[in-house]
Amino acid sequence: MEQETNSEIIKKGRRAKAASFDCASIPTERKNRFLSSLSKALTEEKTAVLAANEKDLERGAKNGLSAALLDRLKLNDKRIEDIALSLTQLADLPDPVGEVLQSWRRPNGLELSKVRVPFGVIGIIYEARPNVTVDSAAICFKTGNACLLRGSSSALDTNLALVKVIRGTLTKEQLPEDAIQLIEDTRRESIVDLLQASSLVDCVIPRGGADLIQFVVRNSVVPVIETGAGNCHLYIDGDADPEMAISICSNAKTQRPSVCNAIETVLVHKEWAARNLKSLVTALQSRGVECRGCEVSRLIADSIKRAEESDWATEYLDLILAVKVVDDVESAIDHINTYGTRHSEAIISSSPKSVEKFFSRVDAAALYHNASTRFTDGFEFGFGAEIDISTQKLHARGPMGLAELTSYKYLVRGHGQVRE
Amino acid sequence: MEQETNSEIIKKGRRAKAASFDCASIPTERKNRFLSSLSKALTEEKTAVLAANEKDLERGAKNGLSAALLDRLKLNDKRIEDIALSLTQLADLPDPVGEVLQSWRRPNGLELSKVRVPFGVIGIIYEARPNVTVDSAAICFKTGNACLLRGSSSALDTNLALVKVIRGTLTKEQLPEDAIQLIEDTRRESIVDLLQASSLVDCVIPRGGADLIQFVVRNSVVPVIETGAGNCHLYIDGDADPEMAISICSNAKTQRPSVCNAIETVLVHKEWAARNLKSLVTALQSRGVECRGCEVSRLIADSIKRAEESDWATEYLDLILAVKVVDDVESAIDHINTYGTRHSEAIISSSPKSVEKFFSRVDAAALYHNASTRFTDGFEFGFGAEIDISTQKLHARGPMGLAELTSYKYLVRGHGQVRE
Repeated sequence: MEQETNSEIIKKGRRAKAASFDCASIPTERKNRFLSSLSKALTEEKTAVLAANEKDLERGAKNGLSAALLDRLKLNDKRIEDIALSLTQLADLPDPVGEVLQSWRRPNGLELSKVRVPFGVIGIIYEARPNVTVDSAAICFKTGNACLLRGSSSALDTNLALVKVIRGTLTKEQLPEDAIQLIEDTRRESIVDLLQASSLVDCVIPRGGADLIQFVVRNSVVPVIETGAGNCHLYIDGDADPEMAISICSNAKTQRPSVCNAIETVLVHKEWAARNLKSLVTALQSRGVECRGCEVSRLIADSIKRAEESDWATEYLDLILAVKVVDDVESAIDHINTYGTRHSEAIISSSPKSVEKFFSRVDAAALYHNASTRFTDGFEFGFGAEIDISTQKLHARGPMGLAELTSYKYLVRGHGQVRE
Repeated sequence: MEQETNSEIIKKGRRAKAASFDCASIPTERKNRFLSSLSKALTEEKTAVLAANEKDLERGAKNGLSAALLDRLKLNDKRIEDIALSLTQLADLPDPVGEVLQSWRRPNGLELSKVRVPFGVIGIIYEARPNVTVDSAAICFKTGNACLLRGSSSALDTNLALVKVIRGTLTKEQLPEDAIQLIEDTRRESIVDLLQASSLVDCVIPRGGADLIQFVVRNSVVPVIETGAGNCHLYIDGDADPEMAISICSNAKTQRPSVCNAIETVLVHKEWAARNLKSLVTALQSRGVECRGCEVSRLIADSIKRAEESDWATEYLDLILAVKVVDDVESAIDHINTYGTRHSEAIISSSPKSVEKFFSRVDAAALYHNASTRFTDGFEFGFGAEIDISTQKLHARGPMGLAELTSYKYLVRGHGQVRE
């Protein structure tokens, strides 16, 4: 079995590498035409895709998948239409490849330019959602990259059907079919093999939960863009406008609690807490939020349950919020830099000094003043696309749009220069 | 022992992390004053540093280190002066931290800006040269980063003496002493511990030979910037000017054969080879270069030794050059993309079509037309500093100057915006 796994990764990896050299120079118009053509093909092939999806759903139900997981796995007319629409939107975005980032001339006459180029081959490792298959393939293709898609076993039939449509469209458009390939071996070992294939894969991006991400980070020799996990905080300063603070806190916790940019802890300045914590807790509880707080918070609002040390480090992804009363903005910053995951952090304050301190000292991809953390998103930032949200500092940080899937190279033009 | 190792990395890592929050906002003038002050202090403390270096040299000689290694380890008046001078040059460079890379406004009134920030804590893992200690510490400090320096056991006394001067200067300038720390445990296990400390270290950079780099890449959970290894090529096209081609080939091979941007293989178009290969080989041999070639090359110039398959993949770092005759620019590109290490690749040609093909299809950090690969260097590129040369595509590619040691964060200013 071991050998067979390797042979799939190596065989497809080599084909992807070969295709990547062609992909790097496909003209923008042809890439966009492919995206529009794929959008149409998905609508046309809807019946076949839905039939394959039905098989996955049946197998999933038999294997006892949770209702939430089955819902993530499920495609229907509306979801396929949404995928098709997102492809035409992607076609409308500017192509980052070939952009001259900088150019200059040296005293010895060498002409240098720094030009944006694709990575080459990107490995995408993801979980149940089948829309990620099309979305990842399309974004990689638009940015001139070949990709290897490693989805989960629960979505295998759907993914095979989708990739058949994708590759059929590549062929129809006379584009390199091996630019987009699905890894069909869904055992965990095949992820490890992909993560070790550093001569064939230039970069891997895990798109999924914290366990998958940590597995990828711990096992990869290929450079990884770490994504996702968000233990995000809202800090309410002493002089914060109560109405605004309550509105933003409710939004950041309850508008969609299952996503990484929702908050998990609210840190409340002691003076604000004395005046307003009760109202905040009432507002949250009316929206079904369970509050777990420090001792001081429980003296003020006794409906708050007792928080354990582990609560400060937990990404609930649920209608639960940890509450801590702090002495000042410095204590809030220390708490965030200790427990945060460098994702999104917000301060509600009327004091420019507090905001300045928060912005300069909190270590995170996105910092907010008087706004909800829920805006950390490629579309909300105006990028027009998003492959995921990076929580590392190397290469890309925060929402990753098209430019974040590219590297650069230096082109140097001379007339015989040698080094003395 | 295990526990003690961990405790050094964890203790110093925590201190470095704490210092990094201060480092991020030290004003440029104070950072530059530190660099000038360190430059003076090194000159003043020269005697102590040279005495420590003498101990390392004696121990090295007793342990049978090669003459080349002892030379790398050695400091003298001139080398210390050079280090001191490079610090004042670094002080003169612009500070990348705080630069606003982009700013824009969304339709909902959110004001976004993308601001350059330090990584936080950088781990530098390096070998014998003691100048790397000062150089790495200074570049990290200038870019607002704290650093953990892990040098080799052969240079331990020198490194301790240098870091004493560095930390003394930090204290004197009322700057956080723990911004710059030396890991004194020089067993290989301490590298592994550093590479696993992902909550304390934001990025590691190996500065050394291929073995060290591969060890770091294979064992790191912390994001790595892969550096250095250079199996570089020069391709001489059919119509290349013979004099220019011979001059550049000699320069790229012999001007300093021990460095990563020297060439290891010359690929020669068959037509050019028929006319000029003999002269090229004669010129190279007159400079002491041993040529190892393919069968065709040996039919043209019989002083060429027979190359093995392994020669195409070898970074000689010595006066040896592999020679291969190829049919056309496409074959040269295929050879480079198969055996190259994505470092620096050059074409000598008078055909714009060949150059265009070479520039668009060769996958490397720096591509040259009619110039020597030896220019891949932060100073030659005009960056004014260089921490190393990246051969990966994530984050930084090619020579890394100051900006390449930074990340960014998004600052978002609102007035109560929530997500609908």
